[in-house]
Amino acid sequence: MTHPTRIVLASRPKGAPTAENFRVEEFDLPEAREGDVTLRILYLSLDPYMRGRMSDAKSYAAPTPVDGVMEGETVCEVSRSRDPAFKPGDIVRARTGWCTHAVLAGSSVYHFNTHGAPDTTAIGVLGMPGFTAYSGMKVIGQPKSGETVVVAAASGPVGSMVGQLARLAGARAVGIAGGKDKCDFVRNELGFDAVVDHRSKDFVTDLEHACPNGIDVYFENVGGHVWDAVLPLLNQFARVPVCGLVATYNGAGAGDHDRLPGTMGAILRRSIQVRGFIQTEFVKDHYKDFEREIGPLVANGSIKYREDVVDGLEKAPSAFIGMLDGKNFGKLLVRVA
Amino acid sequence: MTHPTRIVLASRPKGAPTAENFRVEEFDLPEAREGDVTLRILYLSLDPYMRGRMSDAKSYAAPTPVDGVMEGETVCEVSRSRDPAFKPGDIVRARTGWCTHAVLAGSSVYHFNTHGAPDTTAIGVLGMPGFTAYSGMKVIGQPKSGETVVVAAASGPVGSMVGQLARLAGARAVGIAGGKDKCDFVRNELGFDAVVDHRSKDFVTDLEHACPNGIDVYFENVGGHVWDAVLPLLNQFARVPVCGLVATYNGAGAGDHDRLPGTMGAILRRSIQVRGFIQTEFVKDHYKDFEREIGPLVANGSIKYREDVVDGLEKAPSAFIGMLDGKNFGKLLVRVA
Repeated sequence: MTHPTRIVLASRPKGAPTAENFRVEEFDLPEAREGDVTLRILYLSLDPYMRGRMSDAKSYAAPTPVDGVMEGETVCEVSRSRDPAFKPGDIVRARTGWCTHAVLAGSSVYHFNTHGAPDTTAIGVLGMPGFTAYSGMKVIGQPKSGETVVVAAASGPVGSMVGQLARLAGARAVGIAGGKDKCDFVRNELGFDAVVDHRSKDFVTDLEHACPNGIDVYFENVGGHVWDAVLPLLNQFARVPVCGLVATYNGAGAGDHDRLPGTMGAILRRSIQVRGFIQTEFVKDHYKDFEREIGPLVANGSIKYREDVVDGLEKAPSAFIGMLDGKNFGKLLVRVA
Repeated sequence: MTHPTRIVLASRPKGAPTAENFRVEEFDLPEAREGDVTLRILYLSLDPYMRGRMSDAKSYAAPTPVDGVMEGETVCEVSRSRDPAFKPGDIVRARTGWCTHAVLAGSSVYHFNTHGAPDTTAIGVLGMPGFTAYSGMKVIGQPKSGETVVVAAASGPVGSMVGQLARLAGARAVGIAGGKDKCDFVRNELGFDAVVDHRSKDFVTDLEHACPNGIDVYFENVGGHVWDAVLPLLNQFARVPVCGLVATYNGAGAGDHDRLPGTMGAILRRSIQVRGFIQTEFVKDHYKDFEREIGPLVANGSIKYREDVVDGLEKAPSAFIGMLDGKNFGKLLVRVA
C-alpha cells in the first residue's frame, strides 16, 4: 500500500483559486475503532460548491479550515470493516474528502444502488449532482408539458439531468453551453430541443430565438451574464431554482451598474419565483424516489451522461481550477486508486 | 347633478409624477344599455400600483393610454340600474377609475360584504390592499408560530394587515415606518412587537436589534435601501413575498454598485424564496376565505386600520404624488361625492 495521501486547503483564495491554495501531504491513517470502516478511495467527485467551502463567507455549510482536508464525496472500496453492515470489497459512497484512504464511522457510509449503471454514477448522475437536478425540478421547477425549461452548464452533471427531466415532463429543453463540442453534445447526444453557445457574440438573440414562447423554468447554476439574457424572457409565473452561481464564485459576474432593481422589478411584475436550495434539504422527502425512478433510466441508457475523468489525486487542484473556468466536459471525476 | 368629471393621464412621467402628468376634464356619461348600472362614485382608492400603469414598461397589466382615464377602484352608489342584480341606493365596489360618475356592466360590479365595517374598508383593509397582505402571507409568507415577520410601510393598508396577520399566526411582527407618528401608531395602535424608523441614521442596527432571531418572512413592498438592511438578517428558508417596490417606481432606489450578486448569493446560500405576486392571481382560491375570515375581525375591532381621506377628486393627483413619497398616513382615499 502506498502511503495515505491527502490534499489540504493551504490558504484561502482571493478570486480564482491557484495551485498555491492547495497542499498535497502524506498522513497516517487513524486506527479503526469499533463501528468504523477503512476505505480505499477509487473516485473523487469535484464540484463547484467546493469553491464556497474554501471561503469563510456566511453560508449553509461551515468553511473548510485552513490546513483542513478539502471536502468531497468519493466512491470507495471497503478494505477493512469493524461495522457488521460492511465487508471488505464493498463499493460504497462516503464523504472522505480529497484523499487516497480514510477511516470513517460505518454509519456515515452509504451503500448505493445504481441499478447496474457504473459505480462512478453514484457520485455523478445518480449522486449529488443528479439529485440536485431532480429535487430542484421536482420541488421548485415543476415543469409542465409544453413549457420551456432553460439550463446553463447543460453538458455538466446537473444541467444534463435538468434538460432530460424537462423532456420527460413533456417540456421543451433549451441548454446553454460553452463552445461547439459541448453544444453538439447537448443537442445530439443528450437530445435537448435547442442549445445556445454562451460564448457567441449573438448569445442574447440566439437564446431569444431558442425560446420563442419565453422561459417558464430557468434552472440557475451559473449566474453572471447568462442571467441578464434570461431575465427578459422569463414568463409570468416562471420558476427559478437556484442551485449554484459558479460564474460569481471567484468574485466575478458583477455588472457595471446596479442590476438588482431590474431583477426585483421583473420578479414583481411577472410573479416570478426565485428559490435558492441545496439538495440536502430535499433528501429526506425525495432521495429514495430519485434512486428508484432515475437509477434504472440511467442504467438502461434512457438518461445519458458524460464523465470527464482525470487520473491521480495530485491532479485534483488543477482539474478543479479548470472546472471553475468551464474547462471540464461532463462530470469531473478524479480516479484516485 | 354636477357635470361628470374625470382625471386622465396627460403624459407619461419621467421619474416622479408631477401635476402636469394629469388633466381634469368634464365628460358626458354614455347611455346605459341593458345590463348596465349607472354609478355615483363615493370614494376612490389611491394605490402605489397606479404608478406602474402610468408607464409603458412590460408588466402584468397593460399601461393606461395617454389621455385615458387613470385606473382605480372605487366605492359607489348605484343611481340607476338596468341589471336586475342591482337597485338604486346599493353601495358597491367597481373599477371606475378616477371619476365622479360611471356607467359599467353590472357583471363587473361587486356587491361587497364588510360584515358591518364602514364601506370605505371595501377598498382598503377589506379590499385589494388587505387581500394583497392576506394572500401573500397565506400562499407565500406562511408565517409560523415563533418566527419573525418584517414588513415596511407598516402603517399603510398592506403593511398594517401583514403585521396583524403575523401576530394572529403567533409570529413576531416587526414594522418599518417613516417618522415618529407612524412608528408610534404601528407599535401602540396596531400592536406590532417592534417598529423601526427607516429615516433614522441607525436604521440598519435598529432593525438588527428588533430581529434578534433573524427574519423568516420579509413582506417586500418598498425595495430600495430597506432591502439592503433586511438581506443580511434573512434566515435559512426565509420567504419573501414581493407585492411592491414603491421606492423604485420613480426610478430611484438603485445602488452605486451591482447589488444583484450579493442578493442572488444570499438566496442560494440560505435557501431563500423570493416570489413576486399580484393579488388577482389568488382571488379565485382565497378571496372568499379572506372576506369571511377577516371581515368580522375588522368589524369587531380585532384588526385595526387607519385611513387618510382627502376631499375632492381634483385633489387626487397631489395626494397620489405625495403617497409615492410616503406623505400619507394610513390608507389613502379620496372622498369624491
